[in-house]
Amino acid sequence: MNEINRTEIATIGEFGLIDHLTADIAPINKETVMGVGDDAAILKFDESEEVLVTTDLLMEGVHFDLTYVPLKHLGYKAAMVNLSDIYAMNGTPKQITVSIALSKRFCIEDMEDFYDGLKLACSRHNVDIVGGDTTSSLTGLAISITAIGTASKGKSVKRSGAKVTDLICVSGDLGAAYMGLQLLEREKIATMNTDGVQPDFAGKEYILERQLKPEARRDIIERLREANVTPTAMMDISDGLSSELMHICKQSGVGCRVYEDKIPIDYQTAIMAEELNMNVITCALNGGEDYELLFTVPIADHEKVAGMKDVRLIGHIVKEELGSALITRDGVEMELKAQGWNPLKANK
Amino acid sequence: MNEINRTEIATIGEFGLIDHLTADIAPINKETVMGVGDDAAILKFDESEEVLVTTDLLMEGVHFDLTYVPLKHLGYKAAMVNLSDIYAMNGTPKQITVSIALSKRFCIEDMEDFYDGLKLACSRHNVDIVGGDTTSSLTGLAISITAIGTASKGKSVKRSGAKVTDLICVSGDLGAAYMGLQLLEREKIATMNTDGVQPDFAGKEYILERQLKPEARRDIIERLREANVTPTAMMDISDGLSSELMHICKQSGVGCRVYEDKIPIDYQTAIMAEELNMNVITCALNGGEDYELLFTVPIADHEKVAGMKDVRLIGHIVKEELGSALITRDGVEMELKAQGWNPLKANK
Repeated sequence: MNEINRTEIATIGEFGLIDHLTADIAPINKETVMGVGDDAAILKFDESEEVLVTTDLLMEGVHFDLTYVPLKHLGYKAAMVNLSDIYAMNGTPKQITVSIALSKRFCIEDMEDFYDGLKLACSRHNVDIVGGDTTSSLTGLAISITAIGTASKGKSVKRSGAKVTDLICVSGDLGAAYMGLQLLEREKIATMNTDGVQPDFAGKEYILERQLKPEARRDIIERLREANVTPTAMMDISDGLSSELMHICKQSGVGCRVYEDKIPIDYQTAIMAEELNMNVITCALNGGEDYELLFTVPIADHEKVAGMKDVRLIGHIVKEELGSALITRDGVEMELKAQGWNPLKANK
Repeated sequence: MNEINRTEIATIGEFGLIDHLTADIAPINKETVMGVGDDAAILKFDESEEVLVTTDLLMEGVHFDLTYVPLKHLGYKAAMVNLSDIYAMNGTPKQITVSIALSKRFCIEDMEDFYDGLKLACSRHNVDIVGGDTTSSLTGLAISITAIGTASKGKSVKRSGAKVTDLICVSGDLGAAYMGLQLLEREKIATMNTDGVQPDFAGKEYILERQLKPEARRDIIERLREANVTPTAMMDISDGLSSELMHICKQSGVGCRVYEDKIPIDYQTAIMAEELNMNVITCALNGGEDYELLFTVPIADHEKVAGMKDVRLIGHIVKEELGSALITRDGVEMELKAQGWNPLKANK
């Protein structure tokens, strides 16, 4: 947080802070009739569009640790995780609302940093900030973002449409964000004991960026549209591949087979897992916050997706009674379990 | 909170809790295509409708005190304050999303109580719960609700449309919720020092209900529609009449005159103010959480609103250069100041 330039929020109050942070926000989407500044934002949608709404609540100490997450990155990520949910419905994000509760520890400059990150994410994805709430908290920072988007009528993709023989695809690579988190946690503990020692992150930039600055996969959605492929089921991977596969299988009433040797893993992820003596496949299956897309397509679309940039086929859908399993490199079937990141179960 | 029946949330986890709380929710509005259970809800709006979106973040210890607010009431109120914002735009609420972050202190039965309140509020106002997020918090409870509603095209009422000579109207009565809060705070302190003594709230039921279980004024919106009156500006009174009047005046580029003797005050509010040695007009002007509607109408609508049930004319709009003032009972003009309830300024 900003320790050099520090202007107390009390000097301008809630309304002053909102005015200050939102003064340069001008709506760019035709769907935004009126943004920040009234009891509610006014939006407008074509009847040919379905409207998608998703929301997330992020709590300091549970979802982020400000000892190593810069507020600008936090703003960027907080927006991105919601935009990712809209893309995961095959939609296009249009607006977000942003509510924050902050303790006295935060100053105006901190909130400027946070909003810089938010605005950058929104500007990259053509999204309008249309409202929100700014209030105080007794301890820590709470962030709630709601994202609104559109999809052509009937083109929203749910989790429930996967069919037997469908191919299972995943974008990008998995486990990197979780490895980035492990690295940050390790260095946090290490630097707590040695004053002034800066951690050396050389060669680990990718996993750090995956943790600190994830990018919602608009490119994949666009590529699928260009190739005229509509997934039968889709979701984003926020809690780990295993957990998300189980959601799709449960909601579609199917089972699945995924192949260990097909799961995309970046070499930095593999090296970090090695260093930490962790099984890299376990990290890829159960590590959270990848924000990649997991989707199924009809087998007839095999050729279209097989060569698609940054998309990997990792398995296929089977009948429900066959269950969900990972086929290991040596051909053994292991039942998939949802051991994803679950703050409520982990709660101590 | 529930101390007798207590089932730990960890026994079912985040997804289990969401499934449990939302199992009996079935969408009732045609605008809700798909509710809870996917990356995003799917909604659908007519082109003749404008879509309204508002959001609020409520933090334990800042916005509510669980030592005297039952969780069911909290759920009801959390929904209501957002529905109120939709009505304040001359809209009809259709959906809400609900995010909660909770510490280990809360059990499943607590969340059932909270959801009972939410569901009651939604059922009374024909609103669908379409999504949300449930996660953990290190300390206390955080609640974020986003409400979505509709208004006929061009019929949304902003804060910025008040014109010189417009009449200023307010629904219900003011200051009661603030007096209810003062009473609860007083009894909380009193009962902390005397074990087992139950506070006596006889004759104070109204101000308690106004604090604990406010009701969004759908009836007023309907009455205005029936009378064919469209307010020129409107907002709900959440931070106190003074503060809200200043918003309307600032955003409309006008001034105002309101008359002390016209401000509606319930006798329980007056008695409580007397008991606490507070000026009841100050409470009505600056006390928060009334969730009444403040609106302006053209002077031509005088007859229509003058006799309207539960609506009071309290003043009129004047030119901006004349400023905003309260005319006291003895005819003195006092400049209005926005001293409304502002948690960020009050933050200590």
